[in-house]
Amino acid sequence: MKQISFYFDFISPYSFLAWDELLQIADRNGATLRVVPVLLAGLLNAHGQKGPAEIPAKRDYVFIDLLRWCHKRGETIKAPPAHPFNPLAALRLCEAVGDANDRVRVTDALFSACWREGHDISDKTVLARLLNELSLDAKTLMAEIETPNIKERIRQNTNEAISLQVFGVPTFVVDNELFWGHDRLCHLEDYLKGNLDIDKSLAAEILARPRGADRKEIKKK
Amino acid sequence: MKQISFYFDFISPYSFLAWDELLQIADRNGATLRVVPVLLAGLLNAHGQKGPAEIPAKRDYVFIDLLRWCHKRGETIKAPPAHPFNPLAALRLCEAVGDANDRVRVTDALFSACWREGHDISDKTVLARLLNELSLDAKTLMAEIETPNIKERIRQNTNEAISLQVFGVPTFVVDNELFWGHDRLCHLEDYLKGNLDIDKSLAAEILARPRGADRKEIKKK
Repeated sequence: MKQISFYFDFISPYSFLAWDELLQIADRNGATLRVVPVLLAGLLNAHGQKGPAEIPAKRDYVFIDLLRWCHKRGETIKAPPAHPFNPLAALRLCEAVGDANDRVRVTDALFSACWREGHDISDKTVLARLLNELSLDAKTLMAEIETPNIKERIRQNTNEAISLQVFGVPTFVVDNELFWGHDRLCHLEDYLKGNLDIDKSLAAEILARPRGADRKEIKKK
Repeated sequence: MKQISFYFDFISPYSFLAWDELLQIADRNGATLRVVPVLLAGLLNAHGQKGPAEIPAKRDYVFIDLLRWCHKRGETIKAPPAHPFNPLAALRLCEAVGDANDRVRVTDALFSACWREGHDISDKTVLARLLNELSLDAKTLMAEIETPNIKERIRQNTNEAISLQVFGVPTFVVDNELFWGHDRLCHLEDYLKGNLDIDKSLAAEILARPRGADRKEIKKK
């Protein structure tokens, strides 16, 4: 049985867009789902790149793009009251839920609260309310997310992703194969069905070719 | 009749991936195509971001992703002998071809030579050979790409893209609506068919909301 590791951050609208379809793909293909919350800011730091919310033209585009995808699905969303927001409490809460099925339930509730219903999931009173609605032990879990252990586990998750060369979210990993973006779920499913047999030696050969010209040289011309 | 402006750089494998489908979409929907070569490096500079070839993990991923898309299409490609390469001569040649149909033909030939056949389109002898194969006037065009006028027109194209908030390639623009990436051609076609009526006031309202936390604050926690 294949396992899909889902590296994501609640801050990412594309992680939200991926979620429902990912559950269906795992289900349809008899794969297990490992839900791994990571800090996108940590990935960006590790790879020395900016996030979409840090490039004004891209930020504008991303929200239009999000609404287009929702329109295609016939879904209306509210989006969070502030963005970017601090996702750490939500990430830690997700990680604190040990049971795999419960973690799926809490992830589902957090994505929905944030993106569909427009709640502020950086607010701990919002998190506690969600836990109560799911009949999970809010008191214990809300205490746990303040512990060094849980904080460290988000760092470990993020470092695990970085060690696998994950540079953005959402990323789905099966057998060390990376699939980045909700728009690559089609590739993930092809792979699970055994229909994505690319020529890895060609990929390696292409990547080993020289760099012909880098940006500074090109701009100088 | 709608006009699609296609902002692209030959350096971009996703511009190559977009090309054939874009021609079909324009044709199917009775839209005219305006082929606008731009320098990706100029867009990256303007928006202060790195390109995929400048982030090692992303560069590795992009070539795997490219081979996956080609596999899905049942197409084999060789990819260029060096990458990134200097695309300026190819961009200038594309711009130098004034007739719209001939520009489509030369763009098609350049994408194919570079990505499908693995030729070095930064090499001017390769460019001249392609022009001869297309029965275009190689001597005149190869002289024209050395002129200040053509060099300036690539800068103008790039500045036009920047002024429209284009931050990456390929980008398709219709009625000031941007569609970024070959994987958004589905949105472009929906738009052309009048099926992508999103709530622009909601998008504007979301974008006007406050930023809750930026990367430095999040990492400090």
